[in-house]
Amino acid sequence: MATELEDQVNLLEKQLKSLQGKQPKDQLSIIVFSGDLDKVLASMIIATGARAMDMEVKMFFTFWGTTMLRDKNKSPKGKDFMSKMFGFMLPKGSSKLKLSKLNMCGMGTEMLKGLMKKKNVASLEEMIATAAELGVEICICQMSMDLMGFKKEEMMDYPNLKYVGVGTYLSDAEESKIQLFI
Amino acid sequence: MATELEDQVNLLEKQLKSLQGKQPKDQLSIIVFSGDLDKVLASMIIATGARAMDMEVKMFFTFWGTTMLRDKNKSPKGKDFMSKMFGFMLPKGSSKLKLSKLNMCGMGTEMLKGLMKKKNVASLEEMIATAAELGVEICICQMSMDLMGFKKEEMMDYPNLKYVGVGTYLSDAEESKIQLFI
Amino acid sequence: MATELEDQVNLLEKQLKSLQGKQPKDQLSIIVFSGDLDKVLASMIIATGARAMDMEVKMFFTFWGTTMLRDKNKSPKGKDFMSKMFGFMLPKGSSKLKLSKLNMCGMGTEMLKGLMKKKNVASLEEMIATAAELGVEICICQMSMDLMGFKKEEMMDYPNLKYVGVGTYLSDAEESKIQLFI
Repeated sequence: MATELEDQVNLLEKQLKSLQGKQPKDQLSIIVFSGDLDKVLASMIIATGARAMDMEVKMFFTFWGTTMLRDKNKSPKGKDFMSKMFGFMLPKGSSKLKLSKLNMCGMGTEMLKGLMKKKNVASLEEMIATAAELGVEICICQMSMDLMGFKKEEMMDYPNLKYVGVGTYLSDAEESKIQLFI
Repeated sequence: MATELEDQVNLLEKQLKSLQGKQPKDQLSIIVFSGDLDKVLASMIIATGARAMDMEVKMFFTFWGTTMLRDKNKSPKGKDFMSKMFGFMLPKGSSKLKLSKLNMCGMGTEMLKGLMKKKNVASLEEMIATAAELGVEICICQMSMDLMGFKKEEMMDYPNLKYVGVGTYLSDAEESKIQLFI
Repeated sequence: MATELEDQVNLLEKQLKSLQGKQPKDQLSIIVFSGDLDKVLASMIIATGARAMDMEVKMFFTFWGTTMLRDKNKSPKGKDFMSKMFGFMLPKGSSKLKLSKLNMCGMGTEMLKGLMKKKNVASLEEMIATAAELGVEICICQMSMDLMGFKKEEMMDYPNLKYVGVGTYLSDAEESKIQLFI
């Protein structure tokens, strides 16, 4: 009788451990698809806020979102015609992003930036620096890099910048308590 | 031997309770970033649908989303120039929102509203009233209020409207089974 | 004493089973609200990627997203004036979708499609075929069908296409590890 109970308890222990191992991490996983200033700002505010609350944060930049990560001072060589053209049409880094609404040829964008300064809200560039300090992890979608013809040497300096595929995103997202597509 | 087993069982009980306490709530957490009529409608349909299924629902309105919550009949005084200008450029409440696509100077928006009426789909205003009755919780991002120069006295009447920061959103989202960014 | 312990263990077993039953499935739930080519592509890349990793995938097409599912070769009869007009204004299937940015009267869209071909990225049509093969489940929002005046006989052939309401989406999403709104 006693051994039966022991067996039962040992099985329970095993099942409980397995269940514990499957619990999602205190982690936030964000796909930044948009390259609009307002949406990118929202993603950085959520990301740095989550790190400040001690959550792990994984950002996955794809499509238009990758343009935020370009370095305006870097000019890679050896691009083909299409890549050059795309590179020219797309914003070169965080300071060139525009609002999704009310841009009004840039006037709305400048107004918002002015307001952010006045109201003591950190600029996008300051938020990126904070994210780096706090350890927000940034991944870039390799396929988007290929499609837009971006080269690694034109992307901004950021600690542990990674180039990954959708599989990496999914593995991270699956383990996260919160997932957002922005 | 028996006491060893007892200890083991008591430990298991403790671990199980801790695990139970960490399970996400039957709760939906939505960031409404967009101020487009179509997206706001989608968020309200999901929110009221979830409440009807007895889920807790927390909506967090930020950026353009805050414009849905303005009351067209309220005109706060004492705004500075920039706040007045932003206030003038942005939609004043739910009835002024436009479609993200096919707006065509408002024609598409009116067409959709007409269709919704014809097909017996509740209007946005009716959905907001239903949400209030069902107990959908609405929070407004304080930082967006500051940036857009909105004052609390110009926002619509809604039960228990709260003004919060990103930390409140993250705490709620972390405990929710479903999180969306709209 | 022994029976007390037995009772305790049996209770634990019951609670553990109940907890196991409440765990989210290895499932991805995506609302495809957008009908922009870039966003729809992103949703299909994530969906097929997740199926390749053996996750269950449920896509819920609503609003503009439903336009991707129209069949360009099907022309239903007996539509009223408004439905005909909407049907005419909205893209007729996957090959007619446009980019959300840089569309430039279709030039940007064609450029991207050309690039995708050159870089050996599957086209949207190929991705949909792959999704069907892999068993990605596609649901269409019945309310959107009604509003846009789409008929079932004009939608594309896809295995087990379902027409559902928001309740079905919420039940699926609640059970999923990952939920996205695109």
